Amino acid sequence: MDKVNLAQKFSQFSEVYNPKIVGELNESYVKLVKIKGDFLWHHHDDEDELFFVLKGELRMKFRENGTERETVIGPGEFIIVPRGVEHFPSAGEETQVMLLEPKTTLNTGNVDNQRTRRELQRV
Amino acid sequence: MDKVNLAQKFSQFSEVYNPKIVGELNESYVKLVKIKGDFLWHHHDDEDELFFVLKGELRMKFRENGTERETVIGPGEFIIVPRGVEHFPSAGEETQVMLLEPKTTLNTGNVDNQRTRRELQRV
Repeated sequence: MDKVNLAQKFSQFSEVYNPKIVGELNESYVKLVKIKGDFLWHHHDDEDELFFVLKGELRMKFRENGTERETVIGPGEFIIVPRGVEHFPSAGEETQVMLLEPKTTLNTGNVDNQRTRRELQRV
Repeated sequence: MDKVNLAQKFSQFSEVYNPKIVGELNESYVKLVKIKGDFLWHHHDDEDELFFVLKGELRMKFRENGTERETVIGPGEFIIVPRGVEHFPSAGEETQVMLLEPKTTLNTGNVDNQRTRRELQRV
């Protein structure tokens, strides 16, 4: 039940697209991730995901019913990606994001490739 | 699936201790609340709660096994209060907090008094 300081936690790692666990509640994890460059198109069958931006600019593309659109999320803003929705995160400059998602969530969702991270560290 | 800007949402209400719903995911709500002055001792039997501070200073007292302690949470910091733990939020100056908790969560937990809010607005 200790408080968590996000800036202090972000200072403890440098890799991008490798989420770290910083808290858990109600069968979900709070994770921190640094994002730079492109991730990949994917979706999560059973999990809604929250992306809260602390620093930088998160570009999130969505694909629904054959239509693609993009939203840019800045510091102090969040977006919730509902289960089933194809999305593609990216960032030009390094961007710091807090995630909230069920413990069952795999970072690459339905895709398994070199970006997939199954064993997440705690910081 | 629109992004949510917290500063913009906080500008839409002024009452303290009256949480507003700004998002939902995985059977939980994201809520915003302004805190000033003392709340009350309470606990939640079945829900863990996350308090993320955006502005100001949240003072959280805990009572466990007859021992009381206090943590001060500032901007960019969060604390998770596990189910069952007696807690007492307060703030000297107006403090802006983002909450994440199951939809079933009542703000005053096991207590029902003038602070209880059953019908929460969306902003």
